[in-house]
Amino acid sequence: MRAAIYQAAGQVVVADVPDAALTTTTDAVVRVLRSCVCGSDLWAYRGIITRPPGSRLGHEFIGIVEAVGEEVVTLSVGDLVVAPFQWSDNTCPACLDGLQTACVNGGTFGAAGTDGGQGEAVRVPQADGTLVAVPGGLAAVGEQLLPGLLGLTDVVATGLHGAVLAGTDVGATVAVVGDGAVGLCAVLGARQILGAERVILMSRHPDRQLVGRAFGATDVVTLRGEDGIAAVRELTGGLGVRHVVEAVGTPESWQMAVGMAREGGSIGAVGVPHTTPQLPPLDPFFHQLHISLGIAPVRHYLSDLIGRVSAGTLDPSPLFDLTLPLESVAQGYAAMSARTSIKAMLA
Amino acid sequence: MRAAIYQAAGQVVVADVPDAALTTTTDAVVRVLRSCVCGSDLWAYRGIITRPPGSRLGHEFIGIVEAVGEEVVTLSVGDLVVAPFQWSDNTCPACLDGLQTACVNGGTFGAAGTDGGQGEAVRVPQADGTLVAVPGGLAAVGEQLLPGLLGLTDVVATGLHGAVLAGTDVGATVAVVGDGAVGLCAVLGARQILGAERVILMSRHPDRQLVGRAFGATDVVTLRGEDGIAAVRELTGGLGVRHVVEAVGTPESWQMAVGMAREGGSIGAVGVPHTTPQLPPLDPFFHQLHISLGIAPVRHYLSDLIGRVSAGTLDPSPLFDLTLPLESVAQGYAAMSARTSIKAMLA
Repeated sequence: MRAAIYQAAGQVVVADVPDAALTTTTDAVVRVLRSCVCGSDLWAYRGIITRPPGSRLGHEFIGIVEAVGEEVVTLSVGDLVVAPFQWSDNTCPACLDGLQTACVNGGTFGAAGTDGGQGEAVRVPQADGTLVAVPGGLAAVGEQLLPGLLGLTDVVATGLHGAVLAGTDVGATVAVVGDGAVGLCAVLGARQILGAERVILMSRHPDRQLVGRAFGATDVVTLRGEDGIAAVRELTGGLGVRHVVEAVGTPESWQMAVGMAREGGSIGAVGVPHTTPQLPPLDPFFHQLHISLGIAPVRHYLSDLIGRVSAGTLDPSPLFDLTLPLESVAQGYAAMSARTSIKAMLA
Repeated sequence: MRAAIYQAAGQVVVADVPDAALTTTTDAVVRVLRSCVCGSDLWAYRGIITRPPGSRLGHEFIGIVEAVGEEVVTLSVGDLVVAPFQWSDNTCPACLDGLQTACVNGGTFGAAGTDGGQGEAVRVPQADGTLVAVPGGLAAVGEQLLPGLLGLTDVVATGLHGAVLAGTDVGATVAVVGDGAVGLCAVLGARQILGAERVILMSRHPDRQLVGRAFGATDVVTLRGEDGIAAVRELTGGLGVRHVVEAVGTPESWQMAVGMAREGGSIGAVGVPHTTPQLPPLDPFFHQLHISLGIAPVRHYLSDLIGRVSAGTLDPSPLFDLTLPLESVAQGYAAMSARTSIKAMLA
């Protein structure tokens, strides 16, 4: 089969690889219908982190179950399934706590020895604990809902998780630091799922502001740093915001998030801190902040989110502003790296 | 009147100072019955932070109202009152959120131009918003409950706040990093107020272990660092603890707190980070932690705690293992600095 391969920073190719196949009784094989490129895929592409040359790429995909191992009981061949970006057994203590990204038997697609989502098919370990079937299958949702379902594999659930960690509740005012796909999905989750009344999006990019507004942002702040903090404080009566989503993970974005939080406020941090920022706890301490961090347990949210997209009440599809065939995946990396695309879909 | 004065690191004296007196209509003057030395008083004493020579000392005291300004309505001359370590108006947005230590009109006893608690009397700004009268006064509680009430001015409420920030609930398992007065009070609060079933105290000092056990610690771990973390994990089935109170504020204590937390666990941090530790968020991120920090809003907890001590159902008095007259306050500093006393009371 064909699959995307990481060669070096800036070099992604599509090549022939061994066909995805069952290796244990708890596996499934999924024929990929849609997949996409993640902001975190860009770290190696930009040379920020190292990645083994020859490794598979992609961890966001939906598709049709093509084969299941003998122990798999919740899935059948032909099911339309949504995969979280990590697999999980969904039975260990962490999974039972709704923290499937801390599963003792978990892992990430594209890691050594596994298939990536950017390919024709994927072997899915722990299939019962990982994949969620869409009720009624492809016939029920049709091709037009596939982009929305694809969004659930990572960014929609991750943005929502950020809003959840920030303590967002009905009627809340929320600020979102970061206008990448995750930040935009934090707007979506805060406003359309958790019932926030006001969502302030920090964004300097007009195309992303448009998606943010469509997802429910009520205010957009284009300033950064201290000026951005001052603008958010002015919008909130000088007090700052009770709920802040940190969706970037850099020292600068952390500083903004802490600076705009109200006394006693909550920061939900889903921007993976890949540059290892140091968080000086002095400001959070003296401003009595609550900081919750983590890699979103997509699986935890998936059944609910699939129901919303299937019912047509949630539409994350505007995230995908570029559609390419698998063979052109390198163009998707280049466009997202140049920020000319928010998120590139492979179809 | 007589009051303790900071002269230099290691040098605390008692000297004549101007009598405490009303300066505005919202002040009260309190004649001190009991006061004490705080762990945070030791920072300047040990030369860890600088403090202006000649400044007053002490922020923990209880006493009898001697005079009230014209606008004071909740207090009368003769009332037995408990003072939180900071004053607050109790009407601003932060106060209404239960964050009186973030009051816009707040301040700390002993700051420039104010009286300290370690003296014969104290002018209390924002008296209505700050002081809480003990129902029935001195006649109702008697001399023997004064040490317990004194404990409420800071450490009992601060320890309790740490347990609250850590999300402690009925039946919980909690670990407490730090066996100073605040850590011991976190044990007290978690076990006797919030209903925790199991409290693991990290402590290397036999005298403090005794108080910790009396306050409700079910387990004591005498190891530190990685060994301490391993011991706590062994006590909790390898999973770590869901609720951790960080009651020290050093890089080492933070590392322990993060290391012993279960996936998705909560850290309540009330150890003031006076040495400006840097918190690397990578571990908290990958272990999905919730971190809540802050200077305890003692005023928020005070009415409830006064009720418990007055009723005899809460007794923090074992904290005070040394009683001295005001004139000997320097001995209290020396003993606490040498860790031969947990907490020194002036009576």
